[in-house]
Amino acid sequence: MTPEQFRSNGHALIDWIANYIEGVERYPVNSRAQPGDIRASLPEHPPMAAEPFADVLADLDRVVMPGITHWQHPRFFAYFPANNGYASILGELAAAGLGVQGMSWVTSPACTELETLMMDWMQEALALPDRFRSTDARGGGVIQGSASEATLVSILAARWRATNGAVNTTGDTSKLVAYATAQAHSSIEKGLRLAGIGTAHLRIVAHDNSFAMVPADFASLVDADRLAGLVPFWVCGTVGTTSSMAFDPIGAIGDTARQNSIWLHVDAAMSGIAALAPEYRWVNEGLELADSYCTNPHKWMGVNFDCDLFYTADRAALLGALSILPEYLRSAAAESGAAIDYRDWQIPLGRRFRALKLWFTIRDGGIGEAIEMIRAHVSLTQDLATWVAADDRFEIVAPHPLNLLCLRLVAGDAATDALIAAANDTGVALFTRTVLDGKVACRVSVGGRATGQLDVRAAWQLLQDVAG
Amino acid sequence: MTPEQFRSNGHALIDWIANYIEGVERYPVNSRAQPGDIRASLPEHPPMAAEPFADVLADLDRVVMPGITHWQHPRFFAYFPANNGYASILGELAAAGLGVQGMSWVTSPACTELETLMMDWMQEALALPDRFRSTDARGGGVIQGSASEATLVSILAARWRATNGAVNTTGDTSKLVAYATAQAHSSIEKGLRLAGIGTAHLRIVAHDNSFAMVPADFASLVDADRLAGLVPFWVCGTVGTTSSMAFDPIGAIGDTARQNSIWLHVDAAMSGIAALAPEYRWVNEGLELADSYCTNPHKWMGVNFDCDLFYTADRAALLGALSILPEYLRSAAAESGAAIDYRDWQIPLGRRFRALKLWFTIRDGGIGEAIEMIRAHVSLTQDLATWVAADDRFEIVAPHPLNLLCLRLVAGDAATDALIAAANDTGVALFTRTVLDGKVACRVSVGGRATGQLDVRAAWQLLQDVAG
Repeated sequence: MTPEQFRSNGHALIDWIANYIEGVERYPVNSRAQPGDIRASLPEHPPMAAEPFADVLADLDRVVMPGITHWQHPRFFAYFPANNGYASILGELAAAGLGVQGMSWVTSPACTELETLMMDWMQEALALPDRFRSTDARGGGVIQGSASEATLVSILAARWRATNGAVNTTGDTSKLVAYATAQAHSSIEKGLRLAGIGTAHLRIVAHDNSFAMVPADFASLVDADRLAGLVPFWVCGTVGTTSSMAFDPIGAIGDTARQNSIWLHVDAAMSGIAALAPEYRWVNEGLELADSYCTNPHKWMGVNFDCDLFYTADRAALLGALSILPEYLRSAAAESGAAIDYRDWQIPLGRRFRALKLWFTIRDGGIGEAIEMIRAHVSLTQDLATWVAADDRFEIVAPHPLNLLCLRLVAGDAATDALIAAANDTGVALFTRTVLDGKVACRVSVGGRATGQLDVRAAWQLLQDVAG
Repeated sequence: MTPEQFRSNGHALIDWIANYIEGVERYPVNSRAQPGDIRASLPEHPPMAAEPFADVLADLDRVVMPGITHWQHPRFFAYFPANNGYASILGELAAAGLGVQGMSWVTSPACTELETLMMDWMQEALALPDRFRSTDARGGGVIQGSASEATLVSILAARWRATNGAVNTTGDTSKLVAYATAQAHSSIEKGLRLAGIGTAHLRIVAHDNSFAMVPADFASLVDADRLAGLVPFWVCGTVGTTSSMAFDPIGAIGDTARQNSIWLHVDAAMSGIAALAPEYRWVNEGLELADSYCTNPHKWMGVNFDCDLFYTADRAALLGALSILPEYLRSAAAESGAAIDYRDWQIPLGRRFRALKLWFTIRDGGIGEAIEMIRAHVSLTQDLATWVAADDRFEIVAPHPLNLLCLRLVAGDAATDALIAAANDTGVALFTRTVLDGKVACRVSVGGRATGQLDVRAAWQLLQDVAG
């Protein structure tokens, strides 16, 4: 492709994307494809010779579209929001065009410094504790690809601190014990497993009927483990669980954690962004006791995946766990302490210029635009809750202070399963099934950038219709 | 940003990128910024209100450009190639525009199926063993973000297999021992550390004077560890080491590995792509004995970061190590075995539609374009070697069969250090320093998409000039 062809093909693709997003409602929300359909519509062997780009673009419609479940559809109420603003798409494009590696400060200083500034901007906008700011040499923040990675690096930092760094040499984790509720994200168990903390050393802390951790149970499990000669080292508190958006009592968990030198990680991937709006800053409760924290602009702030904000108040432990310095990566700037090398804050070595999409998004809309969107989604969710509560066939099964509503049919699990399947089969809207304390529930996650009152009304109408 | 503004801003950004790439030679290769410069040119606080996108675009030139080290510059000879084709940039843009999550087949079937097909296309184009194809239910491939992650997942799969899965429950890795040379990538030690295999359980296998592993030393270390009651479980062979592009003898390593039930991971991040050209298929030597393998289209195939191809011949071990299935991620398609859920093949849960940029690149240029580029880079490197060999002040310090040349001044380490510093200070070209068996060397990595003979000549002229 010549530079001139790139210009014309690029303009065409920009227009294609605008047409796609503006017209996404013409598609069923979820793909109708069966396993193997998409592959069957493409050649089995790679081409040796060049093909016209117009053919590739045409295949986006012919081949790819039938296999897309439309996360940008205004009636996508499944999983979690992935609202994808126009400015963010352009930020990703700019990063791809520059094609720099941000593994070290010296490999492109702007990639590191803009990221550090964005982390500090977000600390301020979210009103997070100052100890997470990069201007505090003991703390700081970094963009991770996902909350899964944020969780894993927090486990690794905690593991390092609990063993005074010995784990790097010995690999011995045999005394370490971790804590979370059954409502915590699957990446907790996965991260622990990867770090060599088997499930036998993960304690499932009790939750209450709002699906939030019972701090007294956490404290008594810790006591029992200490009596048994074990070393409680890491606890995860969740700010908005995936299944029902429950809120663990971070302050109470943090008190026990601090008394026992346990690393407190707060996973606010789902709901932390709510703190942009002053009236929802209660989601930050107890954060002054956290050793690490993450939240996802790629869920609820219009930034396209991947953009997870990870903060720690213990930079030394993070670097102790993750630093490696081969000869070919040495640099004077980093060795002087004047520069951050973000490769030592994450699992992989390489890194994209992800700060651009956050910067583009914040400047294009201001923080104000994100606040407006959050308020609208919460308001729509509360409207929906009112309608559901007025229909005797349905019940609401969990608190819903923000933008997720979990409901089920009073008729029971089988009826609720059938409800979800029938609703999703229509392609009019998409929901996710979950199980809460043994009961099947339908999650309605309200977070699309384009989702408005008509969409929530249509979703509720659909659920009422298929409920029969 | 409205859809109409997205169109016009998007067209402007496409043009900006074309101008950047066409005109990248007007910049010094490496940024002139000092720590703190970039941040100091931006506001300390985030804006509450929207700003015009034209201001953001202008700041790319005003603020970001001075902080960029230009990986796309034709005289970038540092680190490793990151050649970034136009088609790939558009593939990344399309992925950002669609904004889908590919964590499960059901969350967008096209994202999974196109990726599986691309992995099979590349298996065929690279002439890799058929046991890595996804059409073999025991094997298969997946796009990882980086070779670091590929290494880590191979360690985790090996750890699972060596303990018959017990590690998931017990976390016990106390008997496990791993093997690599001192020339292996830093992600080997980091990956082992993360997986709870301390450095005390990493054996550094001897290398020969071409910096390749001595297989007899590997065999004797394994024997000694077995005699000591330990469990040799994982070895990394490298196809193109980072420091000097050395090639470990994979077949001989594989023989010992197989006899001792050791997982053989082959890290071909740097050089595996060479196998696109039939005359360089010697890089695949011994791969029929490998349990896993990775190579990086984001290094040497014109695909922008991140795109690492990871293959395994033991899918069951990989899934054993990495699968987690919470209720809200269940799907009929995956439970029937008809579909792949790639979240169980990687560390994070979330994933971008990275197959698009590989698909765009292969179709836009055909495999033929990549082969031409590889041949040109190898030819340029061999020309450079001829010139260096003819200058008595310089010596070549490692074999250079492909596209990396390591040289030094006969005058010694201090002179070579001064040479590299002086050359890089000019901004005319950029090189990386390394140390090979105690001797300082200058790496010349020839892999830029736009790098031609004039650029290599200019680089050599520069080195001659600053050598004094």
